[in-house]
Parts: sequence; structure tokens; C-alpha cells
Amino acid sequence: MTRVIMHGCNGHMGQVITKLAEEDTDVEIVAGVDPFDDGHNSYPVFSSIEKCDVDADVVIDFSSAKAEDALIDYCTASKLPVIVCTTGLSEAQLTKIREASEKVAVLKSANMSLGINTLFKLLQDAARVFCDAGFDVELVEKHHNKKLDAPSGTALALADSIKEVLGSDYFYKFDRSGERAQRNPKEIGISAVRGGTIVGEHEVIFAGEDEVIEFKHTAYSKSVFAKGSIEAAKFLAGKPAGYYDMRDVIAAKQ
Amino acid sequence: MTRVIMHGCNGHMGQVITKLAEEDTDVEIVAGVDPFDDGHNSYPVFSSIEKCDVDADVVIDFSSAKAEDALIDYCTASKLPVIVCTTGLSEAQLTKIREASEKVAVLKSANMSLGINTLFKLLQDAARVFCDAGFDVELVEKHHNKKLDAPSGTALALADSIKEVLGSDYFYKFDRSGERAQRNPKEIGISAVRGGTIVGEHEVIFAGEDEVIEFKHTAYSKSVFAKGSIEAAKFLAGKPAGYYDMRDVIAAKQ
Amino acid sequence: MTRVIMHGCNGHMGQVITKLAEEDTDVEIVAGVDPFDDGHNSYPVFSSIEKCDVDADVVIDFSSAKAEDALIDYCTASKLPVIVCTTGLSEAQLTKIREASEKVAVLKSANMSLGINTLFKLLQDAARVFCDAGFDVELVEKHHNKKLDAPSGTALALADSIKEVLGSDYFYKFDRSGERAQRNPKEIGISAVRGGTIVGEHEVIFAGEDEVIEFKHTAYSKSVFAKGSIEAAKFLAGKPAGYYDMRDVIAAKQ
Amino acid sequence: MTRVIMHGCNGHMGQVITKLAEEDTDVEIVAGVDPFDDGHNSYPVFSSIEKCDVDADVVIDFSSAKAEDALIDYCTASKLPVIVCTTGLSEAQLTKIREASEKVAVLKSANMSLGINTLFKLLQDAARVFCDAGFDVELVEKHHNKKLDAPSGTALALADSIKEVLGSDYFYKFDRSGERAQRNPKEIGISAVRGGTIVGEHEVIFAGEDEVIEFKHTAYSKSVFAKGSIEAAKFLAGKPAGYYDMRDVIAAKQ
Repeated sequence: MTRVIMHGCNGHMGQVITKLAEEDTDVEIVAGVDPFDDGHNSYPVFSSIEKCDVDADVVIDFSSAKAEDALIDYCTASKLPVIVCTTGLSEAQLTKIREASEKVAVLKSANMSLGINTLFKLLQDAARVFCDAGFDVELVEKHHNKKLDAPSGTALALADSIKEVLGSDYFYKFDRSGERAQRNPKEIGISAVRGGTIVGEHEVIFAGEDEVIEFKHTAYSKSVFAKGSIEAAKFLAGKPAGYYDMRDVIAAKQ
Repeated sequence: MTRVIMHGCNGHMGQVITKLAEEDTDVEIVAGVDPFDDGHNSYPVFSSIEKCDVDADVVIDFSSAKAEDALIDYCTASKLPVIVCTTGLSEAQLTKIREASEKVAVLKSANMSLGINTLFKLLQDAARVFCDAGFDVELVEKHHNKKLDAPSGTALALADSIKEVLGSDYFYKFDRSGERAQRNPKEIGISAVRGGTIVGEHEVIFAGEDEVIEFKHTAYSKSVFAKGSIEAAKFLAGKPAGYYDMRDVIAAKQ
Repeated sequence: MTRVIMHGCNGHMGQVITKLAEEDTDVEIVAGVDPFDDGHNSYPVFSSIEKCDVDADVVIDFSSAKAEDALIDYCTASKLPVIVCTTGLSEAQLTKIREASEKVAVLKSANMSLGINTLFKLLQDAARVFCDAGFDVELVEKHHNKKLDAPSGTALALADSIKEVLGSDYFYKFDRSGERAQRNPKEIGISAVRGGTIVGEHEVIFAGEDEVIEFKHTAYSKSVFAKGSIEAAKFLAGKPAGYYDMRDVIAAKQ
Repeated sequence: MTRVIMHGCNGHMGQVITKLAEEDTDVEIVAGVDPFDDGHNSYPVFSSIEKCDVDADVVIDFSSAKAEDALIDYCTASKLPVIVCTTGLSEAQLTKIREASEKVAVLKSANMSLGINTLFKLLQDAARVFCDAGFDVELVEKHHNKKLDAPSGTALALADSIKEVLGSDYFYKFDRSGERAQRNPKEIGISAVRGGTIVGEHEVIFAGEDEVIEFKHTAYSKSVFAKGSIEAAKFLAGKPAGYYDMRDVIAAKQ
């Protein structure tokens, strides 16, 4: 049984994780941290991580950037592994997290879903074969109309992982509208579609002579990220210091 | 039986049309025009349109820009309807064709396929309902890696036709990578994917709250454009002067 | 402002509609009916429709088959228009509803979403053109692994609507595995995919010579059905007796 | 330089391979075998394999079942590796080929394309992770309306390869229309769509809780099979006796 502190327990994702954890017999939320609380959770909730005195194996963090420094200090001091899912962190905070990982186990991923993280390795395998055979690689991602950044962090992470096996002479192409030119074979086109409430869709296309292979991931709700963070928590409990990724969680399952 | 002069009969498309016409009992190629000929066609071939003295009902033109002026002059003088499928025409030539259409029936379309041209009207109907209900519209097109222009002329024609019903405050968005901003509701995103030998794929997406509707057209070979031009020829034979479009061909079938 | 009685207000769909109605300034839930109630709704809740004495313009019904007869009697007697979304009704109940529609406005649809109901007409228009040109029609639907029936009622309704314009010699084909034979041109193949928690995906394919046109609808959550029922309520309030469908709601918007 | 005998050189596939081989500097067709010949090929053509006295490294066979026995005898006797792509072979012939592979290198595959054969391994890797996590697997294949068998041999081969890693308690489901029941978790649904001239599309779907991963292969023309057979020829030349598969060709590239 993995004992979890849910940092940011009353936010949307904190509540989704709370619900999923109740149905999972291998994991238990033993405490929550949130400045706002009305006592409706089945576990004790503390207003800040420093006040939390409950024994636990790992922290799942879906909170806000301003609470991040205190959390990292706390986890480093108490050698408590932490899954960092909070977004919008500053460069300084990202560096702090990297440094903390020398003393405590930290897991951070561009995308917490099982599906996307399984795709990373499959896409590298695919890229090796297809691009060697002269296929072109392109990505299309689709997200809701409120999303600020484009392309998505996940699309870039997928592209980076493909580029890693193809070589550093490959480069990204975000727009083709301004020119009249044939595609450069070293180009990886990345297109961002925005509309409605689309949770997240990522499609990687390998196009060759008269054949096309597509790998597509569709998230139907944010609970896939909640589920991934619970799997990550089970994995990270008891792990030595280090900087981990959801791909390590997948690899351990294979 | 519609009697056709195939202008550019020995080019790739001219030969595809020749083959399709042989299997179609409602149409007959009575003459071809091409500067290069080895006598392998079953119909007489002339080196230029001026030399062609065969009676016909309509011309299908898949030739080159430099042969276009002579063709338009010939068709205007002889009141011979013409399907213009040659691409890369100059602005002056496009104007000349417009003017010719006051004296003879001319048909010109961004895309000659039955499928795409049927979509035009359906997409306008769809746009009226969905965008009124707050849905967002986006287009993704995919073509081979040798294509010079992006987005494709067909994608722009589809977008124009949607914009026509939505209003002039809508605008196209070709790239979202350079900024951090929510999607503007008046935006119509158009993405261009390039790879392999993809003949042509056009997808129009209407994304609303928790539902998405997609309309997708896939061309598997250029014979769809050949087939469309033969349908256009049957339609245009005997028509009065005017500027026609493949959409008129579709409308006449309904 | 349309005043709604929410019949089955404490079920999953009743609660989704309650939430959506709160954000919609054109509609107000003035009462609920549900045998189970803990008083958490902002409107009065009655244990049965007979006990409900609140003035209203229309009933939205997402309850259970055993409560249906009383509801239909009540609506008929009080001339209160009703949106019937309850499933699993008996043949006798369906007949009773048909008969009631001679005295009061009743709306019932295989699928309550705006997207699917807009597709009905577009697909009929498409079928007319494409099937006349020799294209084949096929449907693929995808739903979650708990769904009992296959193909889905929506897939059958879409197929019925296409068949309506194609003619009665067309027929459905659910399985091709048992035989060795070419496709009959009058066949409409319907395939049912089941897996995970897929809310509902319907794809209609028109396949011709070297081109394919696909129409695809994806529901990301059941709130699309809730939203549709609210639109239906606004439409049905004040309507004369008759048997209505979501397609009438769409048509009224065009 | 791999020297190839093209068995069935004047059939459709034989001619496609002839054309592709001309553009490939690593392979040369040194002779053809076909009962019908008009001398248009650039290599000598023999009316039967027994009459062919040209030195070669490998045979590519796209002929007919009735020519197969003589070919297998010839290759066995002369220790000439052979790529068998002829379809519609009898059980006796399949056994004969298996036996021949003890004396000479034989390569035979359900599908000759690079894309499909790369998918086999990726899908096994994917199935291990996803099905362990409770995802459901389904396949949908689409082919032209002249195809006699359903599901396609390729779809069955893909399913077999997935079943191989999932375990023998998994089984195929071709039709869900006749019953009212939830999906059995051990079910692998296989749907066959038929229409137009679709060359071949295979989609494998892993559906989990709120996420779906799809792997899709689209062939745009039969030249992908021609290309695969040329790659197979290069691979098989010089190989010891054994029964090989396109997957070995892919594996050797990685």
C-alpha cells in the first residue's frame, strides 16, 4: 500500500485523484494540502506542506507555482519522493527541482498519461525504421480553444524524442504558408489545431511512397493524467534519489 | 454522346482521361492536341488547337500556361465550351478567361473531384448550424512532399466557402507557434501537412462543447480529377456562355 | 425564459442538465421529480410527477421506464410538452407516446446531440450525390465496453435516414466474416467497435473510385446529450400537439 | 547488386516491380518468367521457370497457383532463394513450401509492405503495456468492394501477432449485432469495411479509461507491396535455408 500526500488536494485534479485513489486498493491518500478546505475529504487536510506531519511514501503535486518552492524544500529535507505535475513553473523552479533530484526521487513529465508515455518508445522504434526508409515525419495536435501555448508541450516532447533518434540535423517547421518550396526531408512539421473543449489529441504521421502510418492518442478527460500520477506514485515510492519520467514508469511495467 | 477535344492529351492527366473516356459510353474523345505525339492514341492528335478541325462539343484542358491564350481565343471564336484544368496561369490569363466566359461557357474549379465539390455545399450548411451554436472551425490538409504551395488551393477554396456564410469578420490563421494566446472565435485555423506521396487529404473540423464533427476527403489517385473533368465535359456541352464551377455540375445532379 | 420540470432530476443526466441550466439564461428548472432526494438542488423536488404542482412550459425526461406511463398521462392531461430521453421503453410505451403526441407536443430522438442531428440531413444530401455516382456507403460506430446493444441506436438511425433516400432495395450488413463474396452494391455495412470508456463515435464512409469521403461525429462526454435536451426544451415550449425530433430543433435554427 | 528472376513478370505486380527495380541501383532483374510475352521488357523472358538458364541470386514470385509447384521444385533443386507473393495457394502447396524451406531460403508474408511489417512488433510491444493496464483491443480494416475474403489476411495476421503476446484465452469477435451483452475483456473485435477502390487500411485500437491509442496503416497503391518484395529480395539473397518473413527484413534493418 503506497501512502500518498495529495498536494493541491482541493483543486480539480486533486479531487479527481482523490476519487480514483478511493477505488485503488494499492494506494491511499493519507493527507492533503490545500489553503482552502471545507473538510469534505476523508483524509486530514493541512493549509501548507510544512504543517503536514503525517507519515507518507510519496507526494503527488498538482498545485500552483507559488507553493512549489516550499514543497521542494520539504521533500528534499524529509527525503520524500515527489511527483511534480504543477505547470507554469519558472526556470529557477525547474532548476531547483533538477538539483533536488540529486537528494530525493523526483518524477516530472510533459504528459502524465499512460498512452502518451508508451508512445514515446514505440515512436522512436518506428522513426528508426521508417525514416531510414525515406519516410517523412509530421505531427498534428488538437486541443481546446482556451489553451495558451502552441504546439503543446506534449507534441514538442514527442517530436524531441523522435529527433533524438533521427539526428540533430532534423528541425521543426511550424508554418508553411509563407513560402513556395518543396518540403525539406529534414523537416518535422508540427501543426496545432484549436477548437471547442478538445482535451488533447496527438497524431504522429510517417508518410512514405504510397503508404502512411499514423499513431494517434486521444485523451477523453483529464482523469487520464490523474490515473498516470497514481501509477507514478506507486512506482516512485521507495526509489533512490534521481530525476524520473513517466517513461520509467512504463519501462518498469514491461 | 459528348464529343471532347482533349487539350494536352499526351500529358499524365490527358492520358488518364483518355483511358477513363474509353470506358464511358456517354463521352468520346474525338481529337487531341499536343506538341508531342507518337501516334499511340486512338484519336487524331494535332500539334496546336488552331490546326484542330474536328467537330466537338467541349474541350478538356490539362495543358500548360503557355498554350492557354491560343486555346481561349479558339474557344471564344468558335463558341466551344471549355473545361480549364491547367494550373499556374498568370493573373492576365485568369482575367482573359473571365472575359471569355461572357461569350462562351467556361468551367474552372480549384479542385475537379466529385467529392470535394459536393463537400462545398454540405460544409456551408454545416457551418451555418455549428458556428451559430458556438463551434470552432479548423482545416487540416495533407499533401505529398513535392507540393510547392501551402495551404493547398483546395483548402483555401473550402475555407473561403465557409467564410462566405460565416461573415467577413472571420479570418485565417496559419501559425500559432509564435504567441501565447487563446484562440480567437473568429479564427479559422488552416494547417498544412506534407509527406511522402500523399495525393490529397482535406479535413474540416467543427469543434464544440464535448463534441467534434469532422468532414474528410481523401483522394487516392489523380484519376479522381480526370473523372471530374469528364463529368464536367458532359455538363458543359451545350451550355450558354457563363463562368461555371464543379459545384454547378454537382447541383445539376441533385 | 423557458420553465422546465426535470423528470429524473437526481440521476446522472438530470444532474448534468441541472448544472448546464444554471449557466443558461434562457431556461430555468422550476421543479424536479425523483423518488430519491436529499434536498441539494436549488429547486423543489417531488417524489412523483402527480405531486408536482409547479407551473412549467415543458418537461425534460431522463428517468426510468417504470415512471414513464404516469409521466405521459400527466403531460397529456395537462397539455404539457415533453422531451422523452428515457431509454429501454417497451413497445407498448412507445405506442402510448405516439398516441399522446396527438394531444400534446412530444419530442423523442435516437440521439440528443446537436452534431448527430445536424448530420442526418447532410448525410441524406451526400448520399443522394455520392450513391448516384456509384459510391458505396459504410458505417463504423465505437462505444464503451459496457454497452449492451450493437450497432448503436444512433448508427441505425443514421443508416435508416440514408436508406430513406437510397431506396428500399438497400440493406444492412453486420458481418462479412462467414463468406467469400464481393460486396453487393446495395449493401450498407455497419460495424460496431467496443472498448474502454468511449462515449460515442459515429463515422459514415462514402467510398468511390479513388476517393473517400468520411463524416465523423465524436462525443467526448454525455453533456452533449444534456445540452441537446435543453435546446429541445426551448424549442418545444409552446408548440402544438405533434411528434417532434431533434432534427426539427436543428431545422428551426437554419 | 542483387540479381533477380521475376516470376510472373508480365502480370500487374510483375510490371510494377520491373519499373521500381529500374530505379533501384542495388537490384537488377536479370530474367523474367511468364507464359505471355511480347518482348517489351528489357530482360529476357522465359515461358516457364524450367527454361530459365540465367544466373540469379533470388526469385520474386507474383504468379499464379498453378505455376507454384514447378517454381518450388526449381528453387529447391538449384538452392535459389525465393520470395513467395502468389496468393490463393492450396494447403498442399503451403506444406510443400514449408518443406522446401528446410533446403532453401523461402520468404512468405501475409503483407509485403514495410509499414505493416514494422507495425507487427510495435503492436506487440503496445499490447503488452496497454492490455496489462486493462485496455481493450479492436481492429478495423477497409478494402475495395471487389475483395472476396473478410477480414483481410493482414488483419488476421496483425490480430494473431497481438494474441500471441496476450495469451490463448483471447478470441476474435466478428459480429456483435445478434446479441445484447457487454464486451468480454478477452474479445478482440475485428471489423471489415468494404467500399470503392480502397487499396487497404488497417487500424488497431487500444481503448482504455478515457484514452484511446490508434495505430493506422494506409496503402495508397499496390506499389508498396512491390517495394517490399524488392527489399525482401535484397535481404534473402545469400541467406541459408529457412522460412523467413517480412518481419525478418525489418528486424535486419534495425
